[in-house]
Amino acid sequence: MTKKKAVVVLSGGLDSTTILYMAKRQDFEVYALTFDYGQRHKVEIEHAKKLAKNIVKEHKILELGLNQIAGSSLTSDLKMSYFDAANQIEEKIYNTYVPFRNGIFLSFAIAYAESIGADTLFMGPNKNDYHHYPDCRPDFYKHFENAANIGTKFASEGGRFKIETPLINMYKPEIIKLGLSLGVDYSQTFSCYDPDANGHACGKCISCNVRISSFTEAGFCDPIDYQAKPKE
Amino acid sequence: MTKKKAVVVLSGGLDSTTILYMAKRQDFEVYALTFDYGQRHKVEIEHAKKLAKNIVKEHKILELGLNQIAGSSLTSDLKMSYFDAANQIEEKIYNTYVPFRNGIFLSFAIAYAESIGADTLFMGPNKNDYHHYPDCRPDFYKHFENAANIGTKFASEGGRFKIETPLINMYKPEIIKLGLSLGVDYSQTFSCYDPDANGHACGKCISCNVRISSFTEAGFCDPIDYQAKPKE
Repeated sequence: MTKKKAVVVLSGGLDSTTILYMAKRQDFEVYALTFDYGQRHKVEIEHAKKLAKNIVKEHKILELGLNQIAGSSLTSDLKMSYFDAANQIEEKIYNTYVPFRNGIFLSFAIAYAESIGADTLFMGPNKNDYHHYPDCRPDFYKHFENAANIGTKFASEGGRFKIETPLINMYKPEIIKLGLSLGVDYSQTFSCYDPDANGHACGKCISCNVRISSFTEAGFCDPIDYQAKPKE
Repeated sequence: MTKKKAVVVLSGGLDSTTILYMAKRQDFEVYALTFDYGQRHKVEIEHAKKLAKNIVKEHKILELGLNQIAGSSLTSDLKMSYFDAANQIEEKIYNTYVPFRNGIFLSFAIAYAESIGADTLFMGPNKNDYHHYPDCRPDFYKHFENAANIGTKFASEGGRFKIETPLINMYKPEIIKLGLSLGVDYSQTFSCYDPDANGHACGKCISCNVRISSFTEAGFCDPIDYQAKPKE
């Protein structure tokens, strides 16, 4: 029997790698999609390649040039927001937010899915992102699913296109536990927004901060090295 | 008083040029956005530049590389669908359809609007496109507007982001009449999908076909030259 096809948006971080394994476990033929969008932490693409290898049918790296649109420290020289435990604001949007980035990613992923005839798309938004990145909220994905079911060839097929966001009600410690149970090798994943020239994670940016504390909370050791924690 | 800002998605064709004039008439400070997406008819970008000049505050040309995704004759060597009056199928999707192109355009336009603080976006889908391009249907834009109001900084501002599609219930002959009443110089617009090396419209592709018949139906002369109709 022919397997069903799914597109997985894969950054090479914790969440997207976990959903890559979830899609595979659900027996989809997986088409991974990674974006080369002008991000500072372009090294994540190399991690995504290693993670996808041997698992996916095809791994597409799409160039986007989001640095053509201003406004984010992830795609420009703007000084990056740092996590400030003492002054944490629950609903604060960090300047690492890239305007409508996930909308752009979703649109390309839907186009890719349509072009290969995949009616399922996996993406990894979760509760840690929810407050700080408006394009990680559940209803956002629902509206995109609706738009895809009207605005593509799937419209004539009864609106069968699905956007799966299986982590949307989970925090990262749970995601890590789930991923480990699925066999994810987190030593290959990469989360840092501000790596050094050798591709080592800084251990200080918002993303490293959340990653480190999530591994601690999950009760596991983060298997990657950080600049601030030299290998012993 | 500071003018309100609007982004206008401008291809340089009939429809988008008409909405450019509509936005200007509504006294918006206009930011035009044109996509260099790997289209065969790249010459339309030069037309868009001329049309935007002296009207807009800023004209951004974004490179997208939609030819990285397969499936359309507009962005590949695939033989183009031609209009076939004898065998016209009302709901046929032509192969000039680019998978989810308007979704991708909208996402970038929303990102651009968010980055400059424009809460209005104009786009020119209309009834001629409706049947053949699923991403030109009215509900499609509504879902995107909802997604933008949840998934951007506008979410914290009461969901004030609007996607205006003022031509959505109009056919091209009406649009031409409207544009002429607003002072649009259609001799500067460009609609052809398959121009020659000198940038002359072919007069035969689906888009030229609709343009020519729409001018005739509107009772006006199409002011551009076609390859098949040498200048006298």
